[in-house]
Amino acid sequence: MSQLRKDPITGRWIIVNTEKSTPPNEFNLEKPKKKGAKNCPFCPENEKMTPPEIIAHRRIGAANSPGWWIRVVPNKYPALMLEGELNKEGIGVFDKMNGIGAHEVIIDSPDHCKELSDVDDKQAEEVIWAYLGRSIDLRRDPRFKYILIFRNYGKAAGASLEHPHSQIIALPIVPKRVNEEIKSAGKYYEYKERCVFCDLIRQELDDKERIVCENKYFVCFAPFVSRFPYELWIIPKKHSSDFSHLEKESVRPLGVILRDALHKLKKLLNDPPYNYIIHTSPINGHEREDYHWHIEIIPKLVTVAGFEWGSGFYINPVAPEEVSKNLINVK
Amino acid sequence: MSQLRKDPITGRWIIVNTEKSTPPNEFNLEKPKKKGAKNCPFCPENEKMTPPEIIAHRRIGAANSPGWWIRVVPNKYPALMLEGELNKEGIGVFDKMNGIGAHEVIIDSPDHCKELSDVDDKQAEEVIWAYLGRSIDLRRDPRFKYILIFRNYGKAAGASLEHPHSQIIALPIVPKRVNEEIKSAGKYYEYKERCVFCDLIRQELDDKERIVCENKYFVCFAPFVSRFPYELWIIPKKHSSDFSHLEKESVRPLGVILRDALHKLKKLLNDPPYNYIIHTSPINGHEREDYHWHIEIIPKLVTVAGFEWGSGFYINPVAPEEVSKNLINVK
Repeated sequence: MSQLRKDPITGRWIIVNTEKSTPPNEFNLEKPKKKGAKNCPFCPENEKMTPPEIIAHRRIGAANSPGWWIRVVPNKYPALMLEGELNKEGIGVFDKMNGIGAHEVIIDSPDHCKELSDVDDKQAEEVIWAYLGRSIDLRRDPRFKYILIFRNYGKAAGASLEHPHSQIIALPIVPKRVNEEIKSAGKYYEYKERCVFCDLIRQELDDKERIVCENKYFVCFAPFVSRFPYELWIIPKKHSSDFSHLEKESVRPLGVILRDALHKLKKLLNDPPYNYIIHTSPINGHEREDYHWHIEIIPKLVTVAGFEWGSGFYINPVAPEEVSKNLINVK
Repeated sequence: MSQLRKDPITGRWIIVNTEKSTPPNEFNLEKPKKKGAKNCPFCPENEKMTPPEIIAHRRIGAANSPGWWIRVVPNKYPALMLEGELNKEGIGVFDKMNGIGAHEVIIDSPDHCKELSDVDDKQAEEVIWAYLGRSIDLRRDPRFKYILIFRNYGKAAGASLEHPHSQIIALPIVPKRVNEEIKSAGKYYEYKERCVFCDLIRQELDDKERIVCENKYFVCFAPFVSRFPYELWIIPKKHSSDFSHLEKESVRPLGVILRDALHKLKKLLNDPPYNYIIHTSPINGHEREDYHWHIEIIPKLVTVAGFEWGSGFYINPVAPEEVSKNLINVK
């Protein structure tokens, strides 16, 4: 029989097949052919094809020329524009405002074919430094309330370009899903005076059943209430609500555990498309005791259909206990 | 500049491109080839390939034989099982229960190739009668708290079989998304003593800008806060919180407006995959003043990526005002 499981953080339920999980090789991935590096705007020598860079990690060369190992540029087709006023306004029952915000692309590697799952420790660390640097810088704009860092890998996961890249969006509002998490975690804190994520980490580390890998600072596990097959979370062991408060000594361990998790997924599941998202608290400067930042990795192995859209209730064909068992020894 | 719009019902924000919407023919739909009716378990003469029917609309023939125009069968691979107890249980921070529920398939047409978008008024009406009949019947089981009726059309929208069919799931809990809608609509009601949906319908009918089609009982429009390009809602003009309370004279008009909306989408957008979902109030027998049942149609034209997953905040490349303009005259 399947099992219904409830997420203590969001209140979301899932249906999980705990008896007969889909084997890793049975997901039907139609892989589009790779186009290769020809005319790629994110490759070295093609720097002129992007808007001028915001920042780059480089030892040699002038801005907007080769020699970099990380490069950050404005999105050429931004969802939000940096210039202008918000002009909040009501129209009858509706509210609206202008689409003000920042939308940047972080080019994670100069090598068109070297995905984050395959880079060395140093490059993995550099990616996190870029996330952190942009995050700290964008928080200074008083119009922004939230910084969202995410990565779409593969066409089916929404990536329009092959070259390894992440995205960062600064928003003038706190998104609904973040508000929900915060509110729900806040209720738990009110009741227990403990962070629900800290309780969850303790329980996962005790159970061991769903752990995929860990190091001194972070643990990666398949959550008890996984919405999707092979969903993974990476979370700091020490309480912290805000990604932008990441301490220097944690930067490399974060890059490495993220790289390792992606590498394991790639090896086991034949290079699946995926999204990952950094969930962090809204911009407000101080640490909160009731929220805990983390990264959610969502491989795109199944189609989200009417049932999920209608209910916010997910059917997951793979038990997270199975995910851990299948991934733990993948090198 | 793009616009940020907030949904008064869920509190969800969207980013909508109000300046330069993607033209209807520019969505890049990769269409899998149709397999045809060979060995289709939902076709007449193949009745033995499904579990025995729950009910069928037929004038001639015995159960599980041809002669039907609507047939309802248990899902052969159900997400939930009908037999057993819930056995609710806590494990540390988590809650779980057994996967008890009903999962049925409504075969909408005996003709493998005749989609709901193309049937006559009579068959469209029959589909709604089937929804209504199963809905009323399943509510009698005291273990169930919610009935979800939905349809996945096309592989990219999660349909595993081509033959026209809908699904119905009876759940032992009220899904999160439904709870959110109800709670949020409840707050509005508390404040204004009016149904937020009724206010919204009035505003849409006054504005006229986003209306796609209407009849005496129902209106179909592209919501001001559409998450997806060409998202459409069909909603009863008269207040009613519960789909299963649908009155007899509304059954055919609902079937017809649903068929017409799907037909317009098919014509304009080259037969896109889609999901639709009936949003209705949880099972409790009486009408509520603060909620209003409706159908949400979501064509699958764009990929939901990291940004949307991370934030519950949608980027929609087509203004709903454009949707209405493009669909209103499609026959």
